[in-house]
Amino acid sequence: MNNEKLAKILDDVRATVPLVHCITNYVTVNDCANALLAIGASPIMSDEPEDVADITSICGGLDLNIGTLNKRSIEGMRVAGARAGELGHPILLDPVGAGASALRTATAAEILDTMPVTVVRGNMSEIKAVAGAAANTRGVDANPDDAVTDENLAASAAFARELAERQGCVVAITGAIDLIADAKRAYAVRNGVAAMGKITGTGCMLSAIMPAFLVAGDDALEAAVAAVCAMGLAGELAAARMGEKDGNGSLRTYLLDALYNMDGATLAAGAKFEQVL
Amino acid sequence: MNNEKLAKILDDVRATVPLVHCITNYVTVNDCANALLAIGASPIMSDEPEDVADITSICGGLDLNIGTLNKRSIEGMRVAGARAGELGHPILLDPVGAGASALRTATAAEILDTMPVTVVRGNMSEIKAVAGAAANTRGVDANPDDAVTDENLAASAAFARELAERQGCVVAITGAIDLIADAKRAYAVRNGVAAMGKITGTGCMLSAIMPAFLVAGDDALEAAVAAVCAMGLAGELAAARMGEKDGNGSLRTYLLDALYNMDGATLAAGAKFEQVL
Amino acid sequence: MNNEKLAKILDDVRATVPLVHCITNYVTVNDCANALLAIGASPIMSDEPEDVADITSICGGLDLNIGTLNKRSIEGMRVAGARAGELGHPILLDPVGAGASALRTATAAEILDTMPVTVVRGNMSEIKAVAGAAANTRGVDANPDDAVTDENLAASAAFARELAERQGCVVAITGAIDLIADAKRAYAVRNGVAAMGKITGTGCMLSAIMPAFLVAGDDALEAAVAAVCAMGLAGELAAARMGEKDGNGSLRTYLLDALYNMDGATLAAGAKFEQVL
Repeated sequence: MNNEKLAKILDDVRATVPLVHCITNYVTVNDCANALLAIGASPIMSDEPEDVADITSICGGLDLNIGTLNKRSIEGMRVAGARAGELGHPILLDPVGAGASALRTATAAEILDTMPVTVVRGNMSEIKAVAGAAANTRGVDANPDDAVTDENLAASAAFARELAERQGCVVAITGAIDLIADAKRAYAVRNGVAAMGKITGTGCMLSAIMPAFLVAGDDALEAAVAAVCAMGLAGELAAARMGEKDGNGSLRTYLLDALYNMDGATLAAGAKFEQVL
Repeated sequence: MNNEKLAKILDDVRATVPLVHCITNYVTVNDCANALLAIGASPIMSDEPEDVADITSICGGLDLNIGTLNKRSIEGMRVAGARAGELGHPILLDPVGAGASALRTATAAEILDTMPVTVVRGNMSEIKAVAGAAANTRGVDANPDDAVTDENLAASAAFARELAERQGCVVAITGAIDLIADAKRAYAVRNGVAAMGKITGTGCMLSAIMPAFLVAGDDALEAAVAAVCAMGLAGELAAARMGEKDGNGSLRTYLLDALYNMDGATLAAGAKFEQVL
Repeated sequence: MNNEKLAKILDDVRATVPLVHCITNYVTVNDCANALLAIGASPIMSDEPEDVADITSICGGLDLNIGTLNKRSIEGMRVAGARAGELGHPILLDPVGAGASALRTATAAEILDTMPVTVVRGNMSEIKAVAGAAANTRGVDANPDDAVTDENLAASAAFARELAERQGCVVAITGAIDLIADAKRAYAVRNGVAAMGKITGTGCMLSAIMPAFLVAGDDALEAAVAAVCAMGLAGELAAARMGEKDGNGSLRTYLLDALYNMDGATLAAGAKFEQVL
């Protein structure tokens, strides 16, 4: 994998306009839709069990995000996931708040165990909860004790790779340093800025656009790395644009703008990733 | 109909502050509320079947948007539509994704057939699906094959007028060229810019503000044309404001700003419409 | 109470990062989450009855906002409120649209009567409806006849104090002049600008951040005044930043930015409050 490969995946997203079915929380759903439009894909949201099979059928990928889950939307996820599985569509699982409630932990585990999930993406606390490891989720944010650092990078990468092997999917753990692993390899991404954590939904937006990269790419790990680099780089460009009076309101707008203006060449020039394992 | 008439309708919206009850999707609902406030109207959202009759009763118009529909909200639409019909309130139907799922197509058809809908507004693929014509909806976007062009303008206008006559309502088909027809007349509107399609919900916002124009105006066709021109013109003004680093995040903000600052004189000067039939 | 005390409460919010569980409407929920992040707190949204007890348990405060209520979310409020009561967490009730429908009025009254609500915050029409007084709610906006003015300030404050005493909670009535009362004292706040009413959800945002102030402060009345002053001052700063082409789209962004950049010193310098009773 090299920067040019990441560039090609983004350019292919823009060339092919993948349609992504999102069952996602109502907190950040508007930003998820605009993020998909910004990177050249197309969103459609539907969570009613009687509606989702038809919607998934006309899409290319599926985003399952369990923030603000309810019994109806969980059933919608089951139906949509089954249909996406039949059609061989990539499925992204975002286990928002796994570890924070029994329902969220159980729902994330059920999805991972019963559907052919392509990528599971969350913060380290959520991923630990999904993995059945000891976790201490702090709401929808990672517990600081769970942060990936240069000191624990190799061990964290090994954890991600092991989970990827066990579940047969790519594992993407995002934070100050992002880790993306499949059963064989693990990459660290160092794009992004801390201020992104002051906008609600940067993780949800990443999860929404990632299926578009998975549809456009031919390797799930590479596509996931491309999406993580693109979102992180957009955050850097957005933060660099902030003026004295700007805060998370403007940063959110600039983040979408940066995604909107990002092409393959920009991504190739700005992506910061390295193979860890 | 002339530009001054459109200006008067907008000025009357601002003078009378119509209260619009929206049962709309959770993706773009915030922008719908802010768009209503921007043009001088007032929004209230409610979809619970036990709540909607009371809410509709204190409003002047009703917006029924079937994006992210579910069984509860469909029942809410039935109750609200029945009450709005009793009260003689204008009802706007936005058949988001009709043609993309059986549930959406059936729900849109049910609303159109059982309620006194004043205007149905959608893209050509959605309107074709609602009309029972052959349609090939691409998610929530129109199929490019369905685009209204100068070449098929007369035929498209005849289709819209025929549907309007059959259903007893105004038909508004939006796209690069917009078509608005009742049983007797059809108008084309040439306001708007392509970049509006890169913001989620410009169609939903138009559907949300249109009932305010219908309440303020005395002719549904004219009110619909005024709303379509206002939204398209706002998109032009917003796009003209974009700087080098701006994208769909900023465009969305500028769009609301343009609606906020639009008065009748601005609309009269910028509206581009012509009678086709 | 003095300005330095308000400053300390805000600084304590930023120092302690209270986690606030919001069961709130889907119209303005994204702005509520970003407002909480902007003032240094952390949001988590959940309304599913089977999810909310766990979520409330890891939080410090609870925001119950009945806009777009439905039967499921009402049940979620019951379960979350009971759990918050067991844990002694501050509970904020925002009776959006009370008086506009029987369901909303009854739900607000039930919450106030059955849960240990710390603060009820609404416009005068909503608070009158909750109090069982004659009210004539105009959708989600206050009826102009209900405005608090210098002429009726003492009488309005007495009404607020009486309700506070009867219900055993703080009563915050927001409008051009805000009134905040407990059983003994009543304060008027004169921060804020009229243009805030052109953004959907400024009231909801205030209700979302107030629990963070209640968690950080040691006196509910003072914490409520601090939150009301902070939101009003942010509105003033945002409005002062508006350019010629800006409207409610930009104002909304600037409002979040102003909250993001507000520290205790800014609040102490800008807060405008006085004791009425």
